[in-house]
Amino acid sequence: MTNSFGTRFSFTTFGESHGKAVGCIVDGTPAGVKISANDIQIELNKRKPGGRYATPRKEDDKVEILSGVFFENSDDEYGITTGTPIALVIFNQNQKSKDYSEIKDIFRPGHADFTYFHKYGLRDYRGGGRSSARETAARVAAGAVAKVVLEEIGIEVFSGTKSVGSIVGESFDFAYASSSEIFALDKDKEQAQKDLIKQVQSEKDSIGGSTLIKIKNAPIGLGEPVYYKLDNILASAMMSINAVKSVDIGIGDDSAIMRGSINNDGITPDGFVSNNSGGILGGISNGEDIDITVHFKPTPSIFLPQQSIDIHNNAININIKGRHDPCVAIRGSVVCSAMARIVILDMLLMNMGRRIEDFKKIY
Amino acid sequence: MTNSFGTRFSFTTFGESHGKAVGCIVDGTPAGVKISANDIQIELNKRKPGGRYATPRKEDDKVEILSGVFFENSDDEYGITTGTPIALVIFNQNQKSKDYSEIKDIFRPGHADFTYFHKYGLRDYRGGGRSSARETAARVAAGAVAKVVLEEIGIEVFSGTKSVGSIVGESFDFAYASSSEIFALDKDKEQAQKDLIKQVQSEKDSIGGSTLIKIKNAPIGLGEPVYYKLDNILASAMMSINAVKSVDIGIGDDSAIMRGSINNDGITPDGFVSNNSGGILGGISNGEDIDITVHFKPTPSIFLPQQSIDIHNNAININIKGRHDPCVAIRGSVVCSAMARIVILDMLLMNMGRRIEDFKKIY
Amino acid sequence: MTNSFGTRFSFTTFGESHGKAVGCIVDGTPAGVKISANDIQIELNKRKPGGRYATPRKEDDKVEILSGVFFENSDDEYGITTGTPIALVIFNQNQKSKDYSEIKDIFRPGHADFTYFHKYGLRDYRGGGRSSARETAARVAAGAVAKVVLEEIGIEVFSGTKSVGSIVGESFDFAYASSSEIFALDKDKEQAQKDLIKQVQSEKDSIGGSTLIKIKNAPIGLGEPVYYKLDNILASAMMSINAVKSVDIGIGDDSAIMRGSINNDGITPDGFVSNNSGGILGGISNGEDIDITVHFKPTPSIFLPQQSIDIHNNAININIKGRHDPCVAIRGSVVCSAMARIVILDMLLMNMGRRIEDFKKIY
Amino acid sequence: MTNSFGTRFSFTTFGESHGKAVGCIVDGTPAGVKISANDIQIELNKRKPGGRYATPRKEDDKVEILSGVFFENSDDEYGITTGTPIALVIFNQNQKSKDYSEIKDIFRPGHADFTYFHKYGLRDYRGGGRSSARETAARVAAGAVAKVVLEEIGIEVFSGTKSVGSIVGESFDFAYASSSEIFALDKDKEQAQKDLIKQVQSEKDSIGGSTLIKIKNAPIGLGEPVYYKLDNILASAMMSINAVKSVDIGIGDDSAIMRGSINNDGITPDGFVSNNSGGILGGISNGEDIDITVHFKPTPSIFLPQQSIDIHNNAININIKGRHDPCVAIRGSVVCSAMARIVILDMLLMNMGRRIEDFKKIY
Repeated sequence: MTNSFGTRFSFTTFGESHGKAVGCIVDGTPAGVKISANDIQIELNKRKPGGRYATPRKEDDKVEILSGVFFENSDDEYGITTGTPIALVIFNQNQKSKDYSEIKDIFRPGHADFTYFHKYGLRDYRGGGRSSARETAARVAAGAVAKVVLEEIGIEVFSGTKSVGSIVGESFDFAYASSSEIFALDKDKEQAQKDLIKQVQSEKDSIGGSTLIKIKNAPIGLGEPVYYKLDNILASAMMSINAVKSVDIGIGDDSAIMRGSINNDGITPDGFVSNNSGGILGGISNGEDIDITVHFKPTPSIFLPQQSIDIHNNAININIKGRHDPCVAIRGSVVCSAMARIVILDMLLMNMGRRIEDFKKIY
Repeated sequence: MTNSFGTRFSFTTFGESHGKAVGCIVDGTPAGVKISANDIQIELNKRKPGGRYATPRKEDDKVEILSGVFFENSDDEYGITTGTPIALVIFNQNQKSKDYSEIKDIFRPGHADFTYFHKYGLRDYRGGGRSSARETAARVAAGAVAKVVLEEIGIEVFSGTKSVGSIVGESFDFAYASSSEIFALDKDKEQAQKDLIKQVQSEKDSIGGSTLIKIKNAPIGLGEPVYYKLDNILASAMMSINAVKSVDIGIGDDSAIMRGSINNDGITPDGFVSNNSGGILGGISNGEDIDITVHFKPTPSIFLPQQSIDIHNNAININIKGRHDPCVAIRGSVVCSAMARIVILDMLLMNMGRRIEDFKKIY
Repeated sequence: MTNSFGTRFSFTTFGESHGKAVGCIVDGTPAGVKISANDIQIELNKRKPGGRYATPRKEDDKVEILSGVFFENSDDEYGITTGTPIALVIFNQNQKSKDYSEIKDIFRPGHADFTYFHKYGLRDYRGGGRSSARETAARVAAGAVAKVVLEEIGIEVFSGTKSVGSIVGESFDFAYASSSEIFALDKDKEQAQKDLIKQVQSEKDSIGGSTLIKIKNAPIGLGEPVYYKLDNILASAMMSINAVKSVDIGIGDDSAIMRGSINNDGITPDGFVSNNSGGILGGISNGEDIDITVHFKPTPSIFLPQQSIDIHNNAININIKGRHDPCVAIRGSVVCSAMARIVILDMLLMNMGRRIEDFKKIY
Repeated sequence: MTNSFGTRFSFTTFGESHGKAVGCIVDGTPAGVKISANDIQIELNKRKPGGRYATPRKEDDKVEILSGVFFENSDDEYGITTGTPIALVIFNQNQKSKDYSEIKDIFRPGHADFTYFHKYGLRDYRGGGRSSARETAARVAAGAVAKVVLEEIGIEVFSGTKSVGSIVGESFDFAYASSSEIFALDKDKEQAQKDLIKQVQSEKDSIGGSTLIKIKNAPIGLGEPVYYKLDNILASAMMSINAVKSVDIGIGDDSAIMRGSINNDGITPDGFVSNNSGGILGGISNGEDIDITVHFKPTPSIFLPQQSIDIHNNAININIKGRHDPCVAIRGSVVCSAMARIVILDMLLMNMGRRIEDFKKIY
C-alpha cells in the first residue's frame, strides 16, 4: 500500500496531473467532529497555483466530500464525522487536450520521467503524471481533516518559508508568514526573498528554499519506539514530498558540529532551558515545541536549454515550456504543515493504550 | 508493530541495554542463500564497543542463529536460508547487578529518560533500557543478513565517517574507511578527527559527527511512489537511529541554495553528468550511486555537571558516570549501512511485479 | 487502515448507501495491462440490484476510472495501467431525500445499527450507511481489475450458488451458474431454489444460502506462512463480506468428522488423487483447484414485525419497509469471486522473491 | 511481515520443530501490568505434548522472558511490563540428531512437505520444520501475555472440545473442560470421545474434531469496519492455526439454512433475546458472548501405508513413524483461545480513539 501514509490515522491518494481528478480516502478520523467542506477548501486555497510567485496555471482546486461526514440536511454547511472513511475529490479543470508529441519521448533533467519510464515500462507523459506535485493537493486535503480534529484538543501546527536560495530568515514569525505572499517568516528578509524569486524567474531559472514547521501544544509521549518514532516518521512524511532533499529535527545538522555540553538541553522544574532537540528525545515528544526544517531543491522545470536524452537513448537538447513555480519551497510549506498534522494525529491514536491506565479510562 | 521495520524484507527487534539479551526476527529472506553465523558476526564486530575511540565497555556481542537457516549437519559452518524467519539473539554479558539507586529517579539531559518515563509511567532505569543504542546491535545483525542476500546480485553498501565536529572530510575513500579505527573517509583529516575525539573525551565532553553512505549497483526502479519512495524510507530508516538529527539525500540541504540550472543533473546516452540527486529521482533509483549523509548529535552522556530534575520535579545537579562513546557517529556509521541494506533489499522485493512482464518471468 | 484490504495488491473503499458515491482506490496493479471501464462494468452488472430474485431498487452502478489508466486519446475505450493507483467511483443515483424520522432512532434486529451507534456515538441512519452491502460494489470493482490482470497469466475464478436454505446443490456447473438468474450451480435444484426464494419473499421473510468459489490454474506456492497463509487470508476476505457467518476451505467442517486415512489426499506422479484439502496444504497452494464455501445468513431486513429497542432503550415493535434481497447469498457470490481474485493477485505478488532465483530472473 | 499477527497488539514468531528454539516477540503490551514467567508457563503447559490422548513426545516447553518486563531484582517472580517488546523463547529439547535419510526426499500426504518444497525450493525435512504445529507454542506464549492484560479489565476467554469425529457435545461447560484431559465441554460425551480417540489410535489412524471458543465481557464496539472487523480477523486468526479447515461465527453455517425471522436476534431493553449472531453485528461486538467454532481436520500423520511420491516424482508407499496426536483438535483448542485473546486485545487498542471523546479522556 505504497500510496497510503499513516497507521491509525491514514490516507491514500490517487490522481495524475493531467488525469480526471486527484483525491484521497482519509481513514481513522474519530467520530463526532464537526467539519465543513470549507474547512478543507481553506487549506487547499493556500496551496493553490496562482499568484505572482507561483505558477500562473489556473486550478480552482475545489474539493468535494463524497463520504464519511453526515450532513443532517443535504444543504447543511457543517456535518459530523461518522468514523467511516472520508473520500475527498478534486476534479482537474486544466486538462485541455493539447499536443504532447514534443515531450512524449523525452526525459526532463531533475524530473521523475526517466525513473518512472524505466520502472513501469511506460509513463503518462502529459506533464508529470503521478510524479507531479499536483498529488500534494490530496495531502493538503487530508491534512485539513487532521487540522480540524487537532483543534479539538488545542494542538496547532504552523509553517513558513525560512530561506529562498541563500537568503535565510533569522527571526520566525508564523503569524506574519500566514499573510505573506511567499509565507515569509522573517519580515525583514521577505523583500529580498521575493526579489530573488523574480530574478531567477526572469532568467528562466529556478531556486531552492527551506521551510520551518512548528508544532505547538503536543502532549508529552507521542512517538512509538523504535521504528515508529516521532522523528523518523516526520522525516519520512517530509521526505516523501516532491523536491525535498533534507530534513532536520530541532537544530538538525548543526548538532553534528557541537559538543554535548552545548547541545544537551538542560532540564529545570519549569521545563527545558533550550530546545536544540526540537521537542523530541528518544523519538518521543517532550512537551516542548516540535521544530522541523525541510529543504527543497530548486524546481527542476527551467526554461533554459538542457542536456538530456530521449527514450531511445539519443542525446537531445531540451527546452521546457509551460508554467512552473520558480521556487517550490513556497507552496511546499503548506504541504509540510499538512503532513505534520497527519503525523501528529496518527501518533495521538498510536499512543492511546500505551499504559494500562488508558484501558481503564476508556473501557 | 512499532518495533518492526520493512515490509517485504523486515525485522523486529527486542531487548534492553541491561536485560538478558537483544536480538531480532528477520522476516522475508529469500530461500536458497548460503549463510553462516560468522557472516553476521563480522558486521557485529564492526559495531562492537571497545577500542580507543569508543566506550571501553566490554561486550562480545556473540550472535546465535536460532531459526530460519538449515544446517545439514549440526556442526556445519554454513547453512541455507529456508525462507522462514531468522531469529538472531545476542545475550548480554555485561549485566552485573550494581547499585542504581543514584540514577533511578533522575532524568539525564539529552536522553530519553524523561520521555519514556512520562509516556509509559515507568522505565527501566538501569542504563537506557530500550532507548539505549545497544538496540542497534540487532539492526546490524539483521543488516548482515541483507548484506549476504545483496551480494548474490552484486549490490554493495559502504559507509564511513565524513565529519567529527567541524573537521569535515573532503575526499571519500570507502576502502580506506573500512580499515580506519574511526572509519574515516578522508585519510588527510583522520588524525585531526581522532585528536578532536580524544580532546573532548579528556574534557569530559562529547562531539557530534556525520556519516556518508554509498549504495553501488542498485538497479534503476527501486522505490514505490508516493509514500514508500526510496528516499523517504531511507530517511525514516536513518532518523530512527539513536542520536540522528538530520538526513540528506544527495547534496541534501545544499540543493536549497542552488538554482535549477546548476542543481539539475544533465542526462547523456552514457548516464547522468552529475549526481546531485544522490541517485534518486521522484523517489525512485536512477542507476547512479545512492548517496546519503546522516548527522549525529554529540553523545548526551557527558561527565560534566549538568542541570536536571528528578521524577518528583526537584531541581538537581547531575554527574553521569560510566563508559560512553565520545562520538556516537563513529559506530553509528555501521548501523547506517545496515539500515541501508535492509531498505534496499526490501525495495528489491517491493519492486518485483511492478510490470506485468515480471509475472510472466516468474509464473 | 481498516478500510483497506491486501498488502501488495490492495484496495481501500469508501462510501455509504445513501451518500454521494461509493468507490475505491486500487493500489499495486502492475503496469502494462490493457483495461477498459467496461471490463469493470461487466462485473458490477452481475452484482447490480434488480431482477426477480433481488431487491427491485434501481441503481445503474456506472463506474468511472479517475486515475491509474493511461488513455492515449481521451475517447479511447482501452487504456494501459501505469502502475499508479486506480481510483474507481460509482455515484449513487438513489439518494432521493425522504423522511427518515421513523427509522432514525430505531435499531433493526440483525443489523449493524446497534453496534455502529454504540461504537461511534452516532450513525448515518438513512439505510445501513457504511454497513450497507452497497459497499461491496466497490469490492467488485476492485476485483474486476484483479480479474483482468489474472487473465494475463491464465488464472480463473468462478463462483455460484450452492444452496438456498436447505436446498443444496449436488453437482456444480460454473458455466451454467453464470447464465442462471440466481447463479445456481446445480441445474436440477435451480427451480426449487428459485421457488423457495419467491416463497419466503411472499411471506415477508428471507432465507440464508451458500456460495461455492473455485480458483483454477493458480500456481503451486501461493500463501505466506504462517499468518498470511492462503487459507487464512481467504477466510478473512470472505468473512469480511456482509452477512457471511462461516467459511470452509476444501471439504471444510466435514473434515472434522473424518479419519486421517480418508481425509488425506494421496499423491501420485500425476497429481493428487483427491482434493479434500481444497488445494491448500500448510497454507500454500498445491496446484489443485482452490475450493472455498461461504455461508450467508438470511437477509436481516424482513417485513414481519420484530421485537427491538430505540436509542433511548425503549422497547418497540419494528416494521421494516423498503426493498431488500430475500436471499443475500445470490448477489453475495459475485462479491466472493471478486475477493478471491484480489487475494490471489496479492499472493502472486507476495510470493515473488521467495527464492533467490527470482531475484536473478528480475534483476 | 508474514510471520506477524495483529496491528496494535501484535506478535512475530520464529522457529522450527527440530531447530534450536521457537519463540516470539510480543509488541504493543501496555506498560504497568504485573506479570511473571509462570503466567505464561501455565498456558504453555496446557498445550504441552504428553498425556494419554496426545503425542507422547516429551518437551518441557519452558519459557524464558528475554525483554520487555522489568524485574526490580533479578530473582523476583513478578515484574512489570514496560511497554517495550516482550521476547519469549522456548529452547527445544527434543532435537537429538537422528537419521532422516528415510523421509528426506518424501512428501507425506496431508502435510505441507510438498508445498514448502515447491515454494522455497528446499525444506527442513526433519519433521515439519516451520509448518509443524510446534510453532503454535509461540502463539500460546503470546496469548498468555494478552490474557494477563485482559484480566485487568475483566475480559475472559474460554475454549474446549466440542466434537471428536461424529461425537458432538450438546452442552458446554467450560469450567468442566478446563479439568478434562481432552478439554471436553460435554461431560456426558467425554468418555465416548476419549474412546474414539483411543480406537483410531489403535488402528494407526487419526480423527478430526472441533473446538468452541467463548469470549465473555467484551465491551460493545470492538471491530473495525470493513476489513478489520472482529469476525473476519477472528476467522483469519483461527484459520491460520495448523489443521483448521472451517470457522463459524455464532451459529455459523446453520444460519445459511434459516429464515431471517428465526435467525435475527430480537432486541429488548435488557439485551438480545438470542445470540445466533455470536455477539457480532456488522463486524462489531454487541456486548453478548462472542462465540466461535473451529473445525480441525484429522492429524495427517497416520501410521497406515499411504500413496505418495518423492521429490523426483517417483511413486512410493509411505509408512510414517514417530509420535503424533491422534486428534489435533484437543491441543488445538488451547491455541484457539490464545489467538482469540490476542485478537481481542488488539481490537481494544484499535477501538481507542474512535470517538473524539476518547481523545479528551486521554489527553
